[in-house]
Amino acid sequence: MITTLKFTVLLLALGFCRGLLDNYIDEEETEALDAQASKFGSLWPLPQKVQISEVSFKLTGSSFKIVDAKESSAGPSCSLLQDAYRRYYEYMFGSTKKLGLSKSRRTGTSELTELQVWITSPDSECDGYPSVTSDESYELSVDLPFAVLKAPKVWGALHGLETFSQLVYEDEYGAKSVNATTISDFPRFAHRGILLDSSRHFLPIKVILANLETMAMNKFNVFHWHIVDDQSFPYLSRTFPQLSQQGAYHPYTHVYTPADVKMVIEFARLRGIRVIPEFDTPGHTQSWGKGQTDLLTPCYSGSKPSGTFGPVNPILNTTYDFMNQFFKEISTVFPDAYVHLGGDEVDFTCWKSNPDIQQFMEQHGFGQDYSKLESFYIQRLLDIVTTTNKGYMIWQEVFDNGVKLKPDTVVHVWIGGGSNEEMEKVTAAGYTTILSAPWYLDLISYAQDWQKYYKVEPLNFNGYQTLLSTPWYLNRISYGQDWHGYYKADPQDFKGTEEQKKLVIGGEACLWGEYVDATNLTPRLWPRASAVAERLWSAKEVTDISDAFNRLSMHRCRMVERGIPAEPLFSSYCPREYKGI
Amino acid sequence: MITTLKFTVLLLALGFCRGLLDNYIDEEETEALDAQASKFGSLWPLPQKVQISEVSFKLTGSSFKIVDAKESSAGPSCSLLQDAYRRYYEYMFGSTKKLGLSKSRRTGTSELTELQVWITSPDSECDGYPSVTSDESYELSVDLPFAVLKAPKVWGALHGLETFSQLVYEDEYGAKSVNATTISDFPRFAHRGILLDSSRHFLPIKVILANLETMAMNKFNVFHWHIVDDQSFPYLSRTFPQLSQQGAYHPYTHVYTPADVKMVIEFARLRGIRVIPEFDTPGHTQSWGKGQTDLLTPCYSGSKPSGTFGPVNPILNTTYDFMNQFFKEISTVFPDAYVHLGGDEVDFTCWKSNPDIQQFMEQHGFGQDYSKLESFYIQRLLDIVTTTNKGYMIWQEVFDNGVKLKPDTVVHVWIGGGSNEEMEKVTAAGYTTILSAPWYLDLISYAQDWQKYYKVEPLNFNGYQTLLSTPWYLNRISYGQDWHGYYKADPQDFKGTEEQKKLVIGGEACLWGEYVDATNLTPRLWPRASAVAERLWSAKEVTDISDAFNRLSMHRCRMVERGIPAEPLFSSYCPREYKGI
Repeated sequence: MITTLKFTVLLLALGFCRGLLDNYIDEEETEALDAQASKFGSLWPLPQKVQISEVSFKLTGSSFKIVDAKESSAGPSCSLLQDAYRRYYEYMFGSTKKLGLSKSRRTGTSELTELQVWITSPDSECDGYPSVTSDESYELSVDLPFAVLKAPKVWGALHGLETFSQLVYEDEYGAKSVNATTISDFPRFAHRGILLDSSRHFLPIKVILANLETMAMNKFNVFHWHIVDDQSFPYLSRTFPQLSQQGAYHPYTHVYTPADVKMVIEFARLRGIRVIPEFDTPGHTQSWGKGQTDLLTPCYSGSKPSGTFGPVNPILNTTYDFMNQFFKEISTVFPDAYVHLGGDEVDFTCWKSNPDIQQFMEQHGFGQDYSKLESFYIQRLLDIVTTTNKGYMIWQEVFDNGVKLKPDTVVHVWIGGGSNEEMEKVTAAGYTTILSAPWYLDLISYAQDWQKYYKVEPLNFNGYQTLLSTPWYLNRISYGQDWHGYYKADPQDFKGTEEQKKLVIGGEACLWGEYVDATNLTPRLWPRASAVAERLWSAKEVTDISDAFNRLSMHRCRMVERGIPAEPLFSSYCPREYKGI
Repeated sequence: MITTLKFTVLLLALGFCRGLLDNYIDEEETEALDAQASKFGSLWPLPQKVQISEVSFKLTGSSFKIVDAKESSAGPSCSLLQDAYRRYYEYMFGSTKKLGLSKSRRTGTSELTELQVWITSPDSECDGYPSVTSDESYELSVDLPFAVLKAPKVWGALHGLETFSQLVYEDEYGAKSVNATTISDFPRFAHRGILLDSSRHFLPIKVILANLETMAMNKFNVFHWHIVDDQSFPYLSRTFPQLSQQGAYHPYTHVYTPADVKMVIEFARLRGIRVIPEFDTPGHTQSWGKGQTDLLTPCYSGSKPSGTFGPVNPILNTTYDFMNQFFKEISTVFPDAYVHLGGDEVDFTCWKSNPDIQQFMEQHGFGQDYSKLESFYIQRLLDIVTTTNKGYMIWQEVFDNGVKLKPDTVVHVWIGGGSNEEMEKVTAAGYTTILSAPWYLDLISYAQDWQKYYKVEPLNFNGYQTLLSTPWYLNRISYGQDWHGYYKADPQDFKGTEEQKKLVIGGEACLWGEYVDATNLTPRLWPRASAVAERLWSAKEVTDISDAFNRLSMHRCRMVERGIPAEPLFSSYCPREYKGI
């Protein structure tokens, strides 16, 4: 499909020609898109700088090799890279090895036989874990006598290998080809995550691994593992095994053992992905209460306990003893520097019903302000987690309630869909923040909603790329006090300073688990999350929906070819359709 | 999950207690549902009459047999039944054969060792094809010394085998069990279909077969194969091979060969499913034009052909010669008594632009009424198809335009979502009709939309089960002239006579192909289509959403266990989760 590529330096000042008109998505518009060849082929997310020439080379499975450059600081002992070489070789030649061989012999074109991978920094970080400060940059030069991929660290090399594999295409005879290309690339945002929820439905390890694999294809680098919640507690804790024994959907078949967790973390590390577990408290904890007596607040009906339980009980010392031991374990099991502590959606009804809680409120002078009690709990929890030498992420309510946070706290913004007023406040207070509000991928709708996700601009006032009158289409009436929305919309860009904008370190696409499990998670996530991937990786100016459609259509077929059931964008076909059902 | 079942005659006068309150679906309501054991276990769709006793028997894979009753008119030579016995044995014992054996030895309970299948009519129809008049009834008695399934024809026996398999459950030790049960069952509607669209995306045969398999689990009996459309022409015609050669997405990998079609038809027949192909004309035919010169109308831009084409050209004799040959082939390839001829959404723009068409309109005195030209075409097409001895189904526009139809025509109602005013008109004119308007399953939305499909009542004024004030919640404002909706709503039930109601022979759930292919079709269809299955099979009074939720939750896990990625209804788990990704 990539045929005549002009040799031009393309610095990606694309998009505004079309982007300005495309702010409101309706069905007619999305139907009008028809996949064409992009001058950027099937690259996704689009690298920062790309030069693709018309000169093309053949590649054959029998002679092509990915090797360490002589000067590289990572040698054959770096199994992270060796594994990656094998993986990308398989992606490029796996399915058509023999075919590729015979075809290429026939053609007279020059053959590219080697990609040299050169880690330039003395410390390749091969055996380390990725972090929010990891250098993920790389430079790729495809030319004779060999292609060279240079990266300071292995993390950039992993991304470069993915990019190289995306440059390889089949010519009209089915022969693997690649054009002479120069790429210089790095991510726009450091934190590019996917949230999966293994509590509302248990996700078999196989599903998690397949999605980590797909995250790597999209250059995501954070797996936010919302591992437990009200519905079930599948995390098998060594210290408190009764939590999953009682709180999982099933104590043997629906749990993550220490070995499972270890496997997920290593699988992710080998792909440059951090695993940040979330243990959300004090709300969203019904399943915790099944295996840990006295952890949750007993709710009262009049003067007697009703037999039901509310959020974590914040007035007992045993609660903090438990949390202390629990998070000590978590800090050793999960190597990432951050743990997500939740803190969202605390329902005060049960606390209000409980006379012991009422007395405690009085003693502490909290009056009737239960958010003070919530903050009391969270503050003590944060102090506990700090002693484990972990940083923490929290949902935005914790910041909103005025809890004192460590300077390196990441505030996770999830409320408010299109507006990120909240991010302005958070960054004004000096905290780093990530955005999820416009990227709740569980909220499905008909037609090409990937465009909606794609058009989000994390550094603009309303989250979207362009202004126009979108928030004020008063003819689009809806139920309820919709004037609120019109009133809140702000005609200014995100009003933060440049310093504040630097505190926006990225975002996460969230696929909450109410309606997804192993049967439908993967096609529902991909390629819709790919839209978020490009937004968080590529330059701000990469906003051409039409070009994005062209590249994403090919990227989705590539995912399908690699065995991932990524759903279609629109009427179309893939040369090799998905083999499953 | 089925534990203490009371012995009571349950004539299914359920539902109105809850049904009356549940007419409007909102998120809170759907979230409130929590799966409980139903007194009907996991039966889906619910049989017409069910008596389940507390007495339970064990079944073991090593000794249980499904056999022909001595008196049966179908013997070992009826491969349809022999295949079905194997299939249901596999469903019941396949995954846990050895486990079942050892467990049952331990228990002291009586063992049921045989299900006898007795075809009572002299002609079992074993080697025939199902039709709209097929007898699908059956009676099932589960008791010692053996269970008996009686059915006049093999079609009822197939349904009875499915029902029997649904009665089998695992006791608390994992042993297969079944309770003494008496069932008498038959479908409420004769036509219970699923429309799949293999044009907008090509559907690999594997996907079609898996969905036929799942249709049988839900007692659907019509596969409406929307096989070609604008986007592609995957049907390989023996007479006109260039149609798929030019019109398919790919002439080898994205076509249905005669052998493929034969396989689909036989696979369906073995499960009591009719295959009705749709060859939609004169609109929706862009892909036909690629392989058949002069078939489509050349569009004009001013006085010159623009190079684009519109609907089938209705003014050329060659068009009718082509259709004659084409539908002669179709009539032999597809054994069903009906073929679907489409006839929907004809865009007149191109016809209007063409001077030859204009002249033809004038000659025939059609004035500017292009629907007359459309009817002229369709009328000739219907006459052609009539000569092939086939009946036809058509989309409602053909009826609306006043085309003269054969008395046995099935008018397919798809416009108007909640209202079936149209069905009143169609039946008043004496035609049979089927309903799809409220069952466009491609139009996805967040949360439990299966409830919306479930609450449709094909014989009521607005398609829904209960009246109340649903159509007149004026506070629920929406964009556009919504007073139209309020004005059209009619406080009366469907005003047809009993005779008219008999002409409503069923309905179809439609999954149009814009956004589905092999990657996501199956989980998107199931269990949402299961809601339609029960509506079309079970008694009108079966409307208890809460009981439906309980049974459907278990039915969906059963589909998962049988290898079908049926998506979850809500936060929950299946004892054996889906093994794929």
